[in-house]
Amino acid sequence: MTVPADGLPERVTIYEVGPRDGLQNEQAIVPVEVKAEFVRRLVAAGLPIVEATSFVHPKWVPQLADAHLLMTELGEAGRHLPVLVPNERGLDRALELGLEHVAIFGSATETFATKNLNRTFDEQFAMFEPTVARAREAGMDVRAYVSMCFGDPWEGAVPIEQVVAAGTRLLDLGASQLSLGDTIGVATAGHVKALVSAFVDAGVGTDRLAMHFHDTYGQALANTFSALQAGITTFDASAGGLGGCPYARSATGNLATEDLVWMLTGLGIDHGVDLDAVVATSAWMAGQLGRPSPSAVVRALSGSAG
Amino acid sequence: MTVPADGLPERVTIYEVGPRDGLQNEQAIVPVEVKAEFVRRLVAAGLPIVEATSFVHPKWVPQLADAHLLMTELGEAGRHLPVLVPNERGLDRALELGLEHVAIFGSATETFATKNLNRTFDEQFAMFEPTVARAREAGMDVRAYVSMCFGDPWEGAVPIEQVVAAGTRLLDLGASQLSLGDTIGVATAGHVKALVSAFVDAGVGTDRLAMHFHDTYGQALANTFSALQAGITTFDASAGGLGGCPYARSATGNLATEDLVWMLTGLGIDHGVDLDAVVATSAWMAGQLGRPSPSAVVRALSGSAG
Repeated sequence: MTVPADGLPERVTIYEVGPRDGLQNEQAIVPVEVKAEFVRRLVAAGLPIVEATSFVHPKWVPQLADAHLLMTELGEAGRHLPVLVPNERGLDRALELGLEHVAIFGSATETFATKNLNRTFDEQFAMFEPTVARAREAGMDVRAYVSMCFGDPWEGAVPIEQVVAAGTRLLDLGASQLSLGDTIGVATAGHVKALVSAFVDAGVGTDRLAMHFHDTYGQALANTFSALQAGITTFDASAGGLGGCPYARSATGNLATEDLVWMLTGLGIDHGVDLDAVVATSAWMAGQLGRPSPSAVVRALSGSAG
Repeated sequence: MTVPADGLPERVTIYEVGPRDGLQNEQAIVPVEVKAEFVRRLVAAGLPIVEATSFVHPKWVPQLADAHLLMTELGEAGRHLPVLVPNERGLDRALELGLEHVAIFGSATETFATKNLNRTFDEQFAMFEPTVARAREAGMDVRAYVSMCFGDPWEGAVPIEQVVAAGTRLLDLGASQLSLGDTIGVATAGHVKALVSAFVDAGVGTDRLAMHFHDTYGQALANTFSALQAGITTFDASAGGLGGCPYARSATGNLATEDLVWMLTGLGIDHGVDLDAVVATSAWMAGQLGRPSPSAVVRALSGSAG
């Protein structure tokens, strides 16, 4: 039954990260033709934005070593899909292919910047500067992920002002949108509202913010509801909850696209996604990966025994 | 990090249903001494109310056929714990044992009343009347579950006024509290607010309402956050998410106590529960059942590989 709630947006954009953030965190190496079909099916299901892959060095993420091949396989249709570019070398590959959207991946904490980017907190912005500048010159749109926006495994709780500082510096470089990531899933609903408020107070409108929640502690959808109330209209999600193994100790999975769609539909919020088509796609991909989907909605609707 | 949100209660009471609603829906038959230890550990973990079992006919629920034995085993400590009594025969057994709290289980829909109680919607109240009256005469406190408050597998969406009618009739019989159940897990956050508002409009204060969410479609915690905003201060939950097999097609599990505790702690809402103790108890019980816990928090914190 559809029952709207007060003060929520009329329409939400789902930014699908399954093929990139999902598959990057799965153990299995998926064949490129399966990835291409996965992307095509997600686009066909009405997902307005599907991040296809990452031009990261295969040494770091062997799961996405076929990034160039995948984008070639997708052809003209792939040119509209965003890809992650960790640095200028990644951007070069996106430029060669004539892609229109790229994403960079920053950190809200010193420790994660050091471990993931091999840069200090401050140095990361110097590293991103030429990447963003050249992408913008080429007419590309640039999204900036900000990871560890709520907690960090080494530093614990992350101060809100530090996240706002990281985010505004990335916007100042020329990014059009920030994706605020709860990379380890420790956010709760009040923290979400406080972070969004701090960005708004710093002059960053909710139209430039997306939320990227992980379900490690089961909080992703409660946090989404809280973010909706704070005016957020773009949410990252991963088809079938891809990226979090339901059996692993740290099931750091992304919010499942299907669980998000179910809530939005119940709230009467327009999203444009065909739920049954996404469920069928995720059930098919779970079969490819040889294990059940972590998404509650996929389990309930697909009958794939998990 | 603890970050409160506006307009939420300062304190919440968790009504633990794992030993009854959880084990009733597990396939395994758990030995009575394991059940007794389960109950004792949950009480020791600070859960203020632990529903211990149900005096239902073993033909219907063989998992709880040892109800009398369990309550005898728990002895004096068990007298303060609520038990479900489906009818006067169940009440007789609670009276013999000198128990102080019982719960009855009504239905918001005609079809489920017929299937579960073998009564029409109206007839169920006539059936409950002597049970509640005799319990109250004996000085017992009576809680009334209302099942299928949002959707019903046969009737679809359940009209809010029908739920309010069922609930107010159970309160009029002498119940002190209603537990409004989303038995098949189809509620979303706006529907929750609308139902609570309708009860308040009908003169039933939020202090007489508890919410009982299932996580079938991943919505339980988002619905809880919505209910907190509507002023609800009592929530049913099941340790480890007991009652929903993570592998089954219809994982109709209860909201996991640990996931609820995690959110309440993050919001700075007092609950009095020792999270580590509940996690350890649920991990132990998952071992007894021979399968992983469906609770995200238990998986993340216990290292029990699910």
